[in-house]
Amino acid sequence: MNCAIIGATGYTGVELTKILLRHSYVRLTHLTTRQAKPVPVRSLIPSVSKNCKLVIKNYALEELKKKVDIFFVCLPHTEAMITVAKLRKAGKIVIDLSADYRLKKVLDYKKWYELNHKYPALLRQSVYGLCELNRSRIVRSDLIANPGCYPTGALLGIAPLLKNKLIDAKSIVIDSKSGASGAGKKLTVATHFSELTENFFAYRVNRHQHSPEMLQEMEGMAKGKVNFTFVPHLLPVHRGILSVIYATLKKRAGTSQVLKAYQNQYDGETFVRLKKAGEFPSLKDVQHTNFCDVGIEVDKKSNRVIVITAIDNLIKGASGQAVQNMNIRLGFPEEEGLLL
Amino acid sequence: MNCAIIGATGYTGVELTKILLRHSYVRLTHLTTRQAKPVPVRSLIPSVSKNCKLVIKNYALEELKKKVDIFFVCLPHTEAMITVAKLRKAGKIVIDLSADYRLKKVLDYKKWYELNHKYPALLRQSVYGLCELNRSRIVRSDLIANPGCYPTGALLGIAPLLKNKLIDAKSIVIDSKSGASGAGKKLTVATHFSELTENFFAYRVNRHQHSPEMLQEMEGMAKGKVNFTFVPHLLPVHRGILSVIYATLKKRAGTSQVLKAYQNQYDGETFVRLKKAGEFPSLKDVQHTNFCDVGIEVDKKSNRVIVITAIDNLIKGASGQAVQNMNIRLGFPEEEGLLL
Amino acid sequence: MNCAIIGATGYTGVELTKILLRHSYVRLTHLTTRQAKPVPVRSLIPSVSKNCKLVIKNYALEELKKKVDIFFVCLPHTEAMITVAKLRKAGKIVIDLSADYRLKKVLDYKKWYELNHKYPALLRQSVYGLCELNRSRIVRSDLIANPGCYPTGALLGIAPLLKNKLIDAKSIVIDSKSGASGAGKKLTVATHFSELTENFFAYRVNRHQHSPEMLQEMEGMAKGKVNFTFVPHLLPVHRGILSVIYATLKKRAGTSQVLKAYQNQYDGETFVRLKKAGEFPSLKDVQHTNFCDVGIEVDKKSNRVIVITAIDNLIKGASGQAVQNMNIRLGFPEEEGLLL
Amino acid sequence: MNCAIIGATGYTGVELTKILLRHSYVRLTHLTTRQAKPVPVRSLIPSVSKNCKLVIKNYALEELKKKVDIFFVCLPHTEAMITVAKLRKAGKIVIDLSADYRLKKVLDYKKWYELNHKYPALLRQSVYGLCELNRSRIVRSDLIANPGCYPTGALLGIAPLLKNKLIDAKSIVIDSKSGASGAGKKLTVATHFSELTENFFAYRVNRHQHSPEMLQEMEGMAKGKVNFTFVPHLLPVHRGILSVIYATLKKRAGTSQVLKAYQNQYDGETFVRLKKAGEFPSLKDVQHTNFCDVGIEVDKKSNRVIVITAIDNLIKGASGQAVQNMNIRLGFPEEEGLLL
Repeated sequence: MNCAIIGATGYTGVELTKILLRHSYVRLTHLTTRQAKPVPVRSLIPSVSKNCKLVIKNYALEELKKKVDIFFVCLPHTEAMITVAKLRKAGKIVIDLSADYRLKKVLDYKKWYELNHKYPALLRQSVYGLCELNRSRIVRSDLIANPGCYPTGALLGIAPLLKNKLIDAKSIVIDSKSGASGAGKKLTVATHFSELTENFFAYRVNRHQHSPEMLQEMEGMAKGKVNFTFVPHLLPVHRGILSVIYATLKKRAGTSQVLKAYQNQYDGETFVRLKKAGEFPSLKDVQHTNFCDVGIEVDKKSNRVIVITAIDNLIKGASGQAVQNMNIRLGFPEEEGLLL
Repeated sequence: MNCAIIGATGYTGVELTKILLRHSYVRLTHLTTRQAKPVPVRSLIPSVSKNCKLVIKNYALEELKKKVDIFFVCLPHTEAMITVAKLRKAGKIVIDLSADYRLKKVLDYKKWYELNHKYPALLRQSVYGLCELNRSRIVRSDLIANPGCYPTGALLGIAPLLKNKLIDAKSIVIDSKSGASGAGKKLTVATHFSELTENFFAYRVNRHQHSPEMLQEMEGMAKGKVNFTFVPHLLPVHRGILSVIYATLKKRAGTSQVLKAYQNQYDGETFVRLKKAGEFPSLKDVQHTNFCDVGIEVDKKSNRVIVITAIDNLIKGASGQAVQNMNIRLGFPEEEGLLL
Repeated sequence: MNCAIIGATGYTGVELTKILLRHSYVRLTHLTTRQAKPVPVRSLIPSVSKNCKLVIKNYALEELKKKVDIFFVCLPHTEAMITVAKLRKAGKIVIDLSADYRLKKVLDYKKWYELNHKYPALLRQSVYGLCELNRSRIVRSDLIANPGCYPTGALLGIAPLLKNKLIDAKSIVIDSKSGASGAGKKLTVATHFSELTENFFAYRVNRHQHSPEMLQEMEGMAKGKVNFTFVPHLLPVHRGILSVIYATLKKRAGTSQVLKAYQNQYDGETFVRLKKAGEFPSLKDVQHTNFCDVGIEVDKKSNRVIVITAIDNLIKGASGQAVQNMNIRLGFPEEEGLLL
Repeated sequence: MNCAIIGATGYTGVELTKILLRHSYVRLTHLTTRQAKPVPVRSLIPSVSKNCKLVIKNYALEELKKKVDIFFVCLPHTEAMITVAKLRKAGKIVIDLSADYRLKKVLDYKKWYELNHKYPALLRQSVYGLCELNRSRIVRSDLIANPGCYPTGALLGIAPLLKNKLIDAKSIVIDSKSGASGAGKKLTVATHFSELTENFFAYRVNRHQHSPEMLQEMEGMAKGKVNFTFVPHLLPVHRGILSVIYATLKKRAGTSQVLKAYQNQYDGETFVRLKKAGEFPSLKDVQHTNFCDVGIEVDKKSNRVIVITAIDNLIKGASGQAVQNMNIRLGFPEEEGLLL
C-alpha cells in the first residue's frame, strides 16, 4: 500500500517520515509541501541515508488521489479541514494530525479555533484516535482524528481513574510541561533560543485549545460531567511532555490498589508502561519512542491520587500514534515501525 | 558591623558573598570552609574584581566569635545545628540557612531529617524568616531560620488565600519546578549534565523534606488544619523555582477579586510583585534578583484559584532573603544590597 | 551629565541600561525606540525595581539634543550612520555600538555592509574604542566607534603578540565561539530553540563581517601586513564568546616568556585578567562582567602559541566597553558602573 | 554468530546495545558489568521494548569464551588491556573500544596512559579501525583497536590532504568541540549540570591523550613527519563532536579543487558525506547517526584550507564504528545495523 504525508516539512512531518521509512507493510511514496521549491528528504532529515531519493513536492491533490491509498494530514488546523474532506470524498483513508476533526461539537470548534466547521457530517464520522482506548472504533473508521500531544499523555493517565469511577470528576488538576517542539517550527519570541534557554513559564493558563478535547474524552470515559483545571508550561528542551494529574479519590485507597486499575486497563499494551510504586517517569525515558510511561502515587493524608505521565510529543503525541492508528486500522502488527 | 559566612564555598555561600560585598552597612570580614586549603574569593567568584583580597579559610570558631557580630550559617542541615548553638551561646545574631531551626516540632525534625534535635529550647526561640510575613517577629529575634527555597515561593503565593480564609484548606496542590542549583554542588547522577540536559522529571513525589515546614507555616496562616499535596520537579536550568498552587475557593470569585487580597497583603512590599490579570511570571523575570513574582487566575468553571510564583532559589529562596532578614533585624533599609 | 540610549530595546540596550542605572556620575534620562508604543524599562528588565519610572519612547531627536549630553547609539548598522552624523553635527559626544564608524576605508565598508558610506569625513574623526589599547585617542575623541564583539576578544588576545612582533603575522588563525545573543533579538531559524539546543556549528566561515575590522586593527598593531583566517561558531548558550588564537612564534619561546609580553601590556588593567600558565578561561568566568580573561600556552613541538580569551559579548563585547569608553572620555574612574 | 559487550553500562555500551539489537546477522547474547547486581537492559535503555529480556551481568570470562564468538570491549583504558589479551588467547575476535591497543609505540602508551604495556606483541597485531581508511587491514585482523572519538572526526577530515600531500604537514591546527558524553558517565565538577549549562571552555590544551594516536595515524598517511596543535573544548550538549582543521596548502588551490581530493577519497563511502562548497556540517546533522559530515573552504588570502567535520562521538566516534568494523571483518554489508 502507498501512503502520503500532506505537509511534510514540519517537525511532525519529519518524525512521520522517519517512522514510515522503516515500516515493513506500507510504502511512503509522496510527501507534500506548499512551497514551490522541492525539498529532498535527506536535506531535511540528515539521519537518512544518502540513497534516499524521496523529494517533498508541491503535488496536485488529483495526482495523489490516483496513486496513494492512505493519507497522513499534517497541515495546520483550519487548513486541514478542507483537504481531509476532499480526500474522504475520494474514499481515501485519512489520519488527520490537526485538531480539525477532534471536537464533536461544532460550537466548541468555533469557540476554540475561531472558525465555523464546514463539514459537520464528516465530523460525526471521525474517530478520536487514542489507540489504547478507542481501538475497536479506530479499526472501523476511515477518518481518524489523531489526538493532540497534551491530551494523549493526560488522557492515558486519567482513563483508569475515570472509567473505574475512582475519583471525584470535579477534582481534577492537570499540570503539564512541554518541550519547545510542541510549538512547531514557527519562529516566536517565546521559542527564541536566548529567551527560552534557562527559562521556564506557564502559558495559556486555563485557556489552552487542547482543553475541550480533553474534556470531551474525559466525559466520555466518566459517562458524566467532568471539571478540570489545565495549566501547560514551556520547558527549555526540544521534545517531550510530562504531565502531573491530581484528583481526589472517592474512597480511601493505597497506591497499590490504584495501580491495579492501571494494570487492568493497560495489561498487554505495548506502548503504555507502568512504573512500579515509588518510581516515576522522566522525559529521557520516552524521548524518540512511542511509549507513554505512567507512575502513580496516592497521597494518603489528602486522599489524592497523583498520576505522572511522560511521552514524546512528536511521537506518541503525534506521528508515532498516527502510525499506530494506521497499523490498527489496516490490521498490521500494532508495533510495526514503532519499536527499536 | 562585621559579618561572616560559615560554609562559604557552596552556591548559596557564593551568592551571599556577592550580595554582602555590595552592602553599605555591614562588612563581610570572614568566610569559612572546612577544607584545609584556603580559597581566594576571586577564584570562586570570577565576577569580583582582582582587588578582592578576601580568602575563605578554615577559621577557628573562637577567633570568629571575637571579631564578628553577625553570622550567616550555610552548612548542610544536621551540621548547622551545633554551630548555631555555639554562636547563640556566645550571644551572636545568627541567620541559619539550613533547615535545622525551622521546624518547631522536634518529632517532625526527627522524622524528616532522621536525627534527634539536640537544642529544643533554642528551637523555640528561632523565628521562621519569611520576611514579608513575619517581619515583626524577625526584628526581635537573634536566631532567624531562613526558609527553604520551595517554601519561600509557595508560602508567599498561598498566604493571602489562607490568611483571608478564601480557600478550602484541604484542597491545596503545589506543583513546583526547580533549577539544578537547588540540589547544590554535590555531584549526583540526576545532575550530571548528560543526564539532565533535555530531561525533566518529578522527584521525591509527595515526600520532599520541605513539606513539613510548608505545612507548619500554612497552618499558622490558616489558624487551623491544612492538607496539601506537594510534587517538586527538576528543570534543566541552573537557577529559579516556578511553583503553581491550585486550591478551591470557598465562595465564587473572579480573578480581580482574588487579586485584591494579594494587593492588600503585598502593597508596599519591594520584593513581591503582582502580575496583572492574564499575566504570569517566568524564571527569566526573577533570576539574579530577590523578587518573588506572583500571577493569579481563577478557573471559574471549577471555582479553583491558580497561583503562580517565581523566585531565584539562590537569592529570594536563600541568600537574598537571608540578607533581607539581616536588614530587618538590624534596622537597615530592607532593600540594601538587594536591588540593582 | 545626562545620557541617552538610542535604540534601547535590544539585548545591548538592555545591558547598557542596567549598567548606566548604577553609574554614579551620569544620569540615564532618555531611552528611545522606533516603536510608537512606549515601553516601561521595568517591563523589559524585570530585575530593576518597581520604582524605576523610566520609559523607552519614540523621542524626537530635536528634543534629545536639547536635554542630553552623551549618546549611546545601539541602532543596527547602516541605520546608525545618519543618526550619529546628526548628533555629531549638534556637537554631542557619541559612542556608536554599530559597525558604521569602525572601518576607516570606505571601500571596506561598502564591500562588507553593501552600502556607500555617506560621511567619510566623520569616519576619519572616529576612534576605534578598544579601551585598553586606544585609551590615549579615546580620551580626545567625540565619536567613539565601539568595537564588535568578536574583535574585542580577539584583538585583546593578539595585541601583545603583534605589537612585540613575536609572531609571524601571516600565520594567524582565530577560531571563535559565540552565544546566541550575539545574533540579537531577531528571530531566525538558526536561533530557534528547537534548532539550537544540543546543536553547534560554524557559520560565515571565512566571511564574517567582523573580519575587516580585525584586520584593520591588527595591521595597526603590527605596523605591517597581516593575514589571518577567522571561523566563528554558534554555541547553544545565551551569552559569551570564547576565542582561540593560533599563531607561529618567530623565535622559540616558552609559555612563561610569552606570558611576560602579556603582563607588560596589561599590567594595571582592571578588565584584562591573565590566567596563570596551565589555566584557561571559561565563559562562566566572564558572563555578566566586563572582564576579558586570557590564557596562554606555547606548543613547543610546533613553535605555535595558543591564546584563549573569553568575554561576555553583551558587556565587554558591547555595552560594558561602551561605558568604559565613556568613563575614559569623561575622566571618570574607568571601573565606574562596571564592577560588582 | 553470538556477540558480547564487556562493560555494557556506560554510554558507549548503551549505544552499542541499541545498534546490535537491530543487527540482522549477529545475536547479542551477553552483556557484562563488574557490579554484582544484574541490570536489565530495558532499565538502562528505556527505548527498548518491554519484551527485551537481556540482563547485564557479572559473567565469568570462562563462560563467555564458550558461548560467544565476537567481543566488544568497552572497559576503561588500562583495564581493557588484560581482558583483550585473554580473549585473544582464546582465539576470539575482539573489537576494543578502549585506547589500549591503538598506540604502536609502547613508549607513547606509557607516556600518555602512565602504565607499561603488558602485551607489546599483541599490540603489533592490532589494526587501527578507522574503517574508511584501513578497510583492507581490518578485514584480516582479529584485534581491532577502535579509534578515539576526537581522532575519528579529525583523521577523516585530514586524510585526503595528507595522503595527497596537499598541505604543509607542519602547519596543522585542530580545534575540536565535544559534547559531555565524551567524558562518560563519571561524575565530575566539569560535567555537573550547574557548571556546564551556559558554559564553554577548552581543556587539556595541547595535552589531550588522543594526540599521540592522531599523530601516529597522520604520519602514516603523510608517510613522513607531521606536526600539529590540538585544542579540545567541552560543549554544553550531550553528544557530538565538531572539529575544525586548519592547514596551509602547498600550492594555491580553490575550494573546488580541494574538494576533488575528498571526492576521490570518499566516493562510494556510505558514512562520509561531503558538503557542497559553501555549506558546513552541524552537530544536529549527525547526532544519533554513524555519519561523518565534512565541509571544505579555502581561505585564498592566506592559502589555508579549513576542513570542518562533525560526528556523533558515541556512534561514529565509538559504538557505530565498532559495529562497522565488525561488519567489515565478518563480510556483512557495511551499513548493517547502522542506517535508519
